[in-house]
Amino acid sequence: MTGGADPGRHAERLERAARVAGEAGLSALLATPGPDLFYLTGHAPPPLERLTLLVVAPDRRPMMVVPLLERPAALASPAADRIEVVGWADGDDPYAVAAGLLPPGRLAVTDQTWASHVLGLQEAAKDRTFVPAGRAMPPLRAVKDEEELAALAKAASAADAAFADILGVAFAGRREAHVAADLADALRRHGHRTADFTIVGSGPNGASPHHEAGERVMADGDAVVLDFGGHLDGYCSDITRTVFVREPPEDFERVHDIVRRAQQAAFQAVRPGVPAEDVDRAARDVIDDAGYGGSFIHRTGHGIGLEAHEPPYIVAGNTTSLEAGMTFSIEPGIYLPGRFGVRIEDIVAVTEDGATRLNEAPRDPQAVR
Amino acid sequence: MTGGADPGRHAERLERAARVAGEAGLSALLATPGPDLFYLTGHAPPPLERLTLLVVAPDRRPMMVVPLLERPAALASPAADRIEVVGWADGDDPYAVAAGLLPPGRLAVTDQTWASHVLGLQEAAKDRTFVPAGRAMPPLRAVKDEEELAALAKAASAADAAFADILGVAFAGRREAHVAADLADALRRHGHRTADFTIVGSGPNGASPHHEAGERVMADGDAVVLDFGGHLDGYCSDITRTVFVREPPEDFERVHDIVRRAQQAAFQAVRPGVPAEDVDRAARDVIDDAGYGGSFIHRTGHGIGLEAHEPPYIVAGNTTSLEAGMTFSIEPGIYLPGRFGVRIEDIVAVTEDGATRLNEAPRDPQAVR
Repeated sequence: MTGGADPGRHAERLERAARVAGEAGLSALLATPGPDLFYLTGHAPPPLERLTLLVVAPDRRPMMVVPLLERPAALASPAADRIEVVGWADGDDPYAVAAGLLPPGRLAVTDQTWASHVLGLQEAAKDRTFVPAGRAMPPLRAVKDEEELAALAKAASAADAAFADILGVAFAGRREAHVAADLADALRRHGHRTADFTIVGSGPNGASPHHEAGERVMADGDAVVLDFGGHLDGYCSDITRTVFVREPPEDFERVHDIVRRAQQAAFQAVRPGVPAEDVDRAARDVIDDAGYGGSFIHRTGHGIGLEAHEPPYIVAGNTTSLEAGMTFSIEPGIYLPGRFGVRIEDIVAVTEDGATRLNEAPRDPQAVR
Repeated sequence: MTGGADPGRHAERLERAARVAGEAGLSALLATPGPDLFYLTGHAPPPLERLTLLVVAPDRRPMMVVPLLERPAALASPAADRIEVVGWADGDDPYAVAAGLLPPGRLAVTDQTWASHVLGLQEAAKDRTFVPAGRAMPPLRAVKDEEELAALAKAASAADAAFADILGVAFAGRREAHVAADLADALRRHGHRTADFTIVGSGPNGASPHHEAGERVMADGDAVVLDFGGHLDGYCSDITRTVFVREPPEDFERVHDIVRRAQQAAFQAVRPGVPAEDVDRAARDVIDDAGYGGSFIHRTGHGIGLEAHEPPYIVAGNTTSLEAGMTFSIEPGIYLPGRFGVRIEDIVAVTEDGATRLNEAPRDPQAVR
């Protein structure tokens, strides 16, 4: 994966994490297997029941508690020479081992840490206070470096290519689940290691934003929401287009046009210094003005990187100031229960003076057969 | 997925979960997206940052807090008619919404619940006590029903077929990562929806039990640990075999024979009423007696079902009494740093009077080219 390429990069990230935690009044950042641990160390053990815990604290050498059987893998990971690695054996109490290494005070835990681990640590270190990193400190991974931006652009281009392929497959007479399998195949064919989600929401199913893909057989006149993505070289793709089978249903083109204008308005609102919520507002204003405000039932977007969803969230109430290098989705939608849904989503990157789209698949309504 | 087939099954599971929680002195079980939520309700939203929380309490109707955009999917899930579904909108505080629905007292949280959620609930419901379900109550999913056993047997047979295929591919002169990609393809070809892990540990890399697959080019005389699995119809596969490239390295056959005898001894120790740790002891005794006790650096096995690792864990200190219908791995190993590793793993099911193996791939050392 891209994040593992350069040991100097991990040193910089570990130092920055310690500094940012300290500035936020925290005595340490604790990370378990997942994107934060990978970002900081390049170590990517399976996120399972055994405790792996990285402790990053200001003015201390980073330490990592690992299951004994993963000690060789930890010692072979990119940032191992910067970290003191402590093993625990099956049968030991890993929380007692970890508690002995924690500085006193307020400790931030990465959001995805399992409840079994955070409750185990609370029990073993009763005098410490544990808080969620996502709310207690600024995000570490929101601003991407050049190599990360290139990886996200590559993943986005591969998703675009998968969309181009899917325009050529049959929809009418086939089940959503079959087109979903075609989408997964196309993502892998274009270099994705995993196809993580392949939403195919046809007809009324398109009005449920997180409908996956089911047994509904599609027919002429259906609108179909296609929202899909996965991992390529460690970074995520995520794109949505809404197509129609041969003929658009009534009102489709009008509703699609509103969503498209909302998506464009949000895109044009992006530049450094703008609060994230203003981008949400820009999309929402277009849909509100068109009389569909009650049908846009989710936020406008989410950050993307090593995770499919990560900060910054493009949502009312998020006053985070956008910075060059941040990457996120812009994906307004209109959902008409019993009829259809429309959503259009691109990944965008904030530039020095505006934004650039990483997805370039056509945004005008496409017909499929 | 199999778990979604029968609404009656979810009613039984919800009632059993409430009863078991009550018997353990808990006022509720709280489940977030993941295997427990799917097992109890058939609902499988993406496990992301938005809070979805099922509350199962004795003598109360189950309730589920869901993001508004996933409300349609929740209402369409198999157990929806048994559950009161409460939506929250982007911008609301989901923890405040959830806190209003929690009974007083001690609440068990499923182990995989994100730290951001459990810490958010602690903050919003300060007078409740949250404990990890894995330690606070008996496992709900350890004893499998007939349909689950059939699904696990099907997944195991598909993994066996993938192993048969991999014996035919070239190892010498190729990188571990390439054989790992072949293994993933074979798993999918034999019906797996996902190939979740494909460990290829050649030569010295085999001595690191959780080594994934890397850039090492394999050569004649290498031993190669192959440990792979994924999901098929919602249930997991997991198998390990250790092969050699044309010629076995020195000592390989002797070490392989010890591991194979240890695996057989553990298998023969399995029957209802036996403590889980006795199965670990049976494998460990064989390896200890052969003088390799210090080289068997992990527990003997883990339960398997909707998750790759789940209770019962086959480990020293686990006095859980085995019951018919439990399923777990038996996977002793010997790891010789700088030289090679050997591990042999089958999934077994406890029967009324002993055990049956779900994997039947050959356990004698196989040569590859």
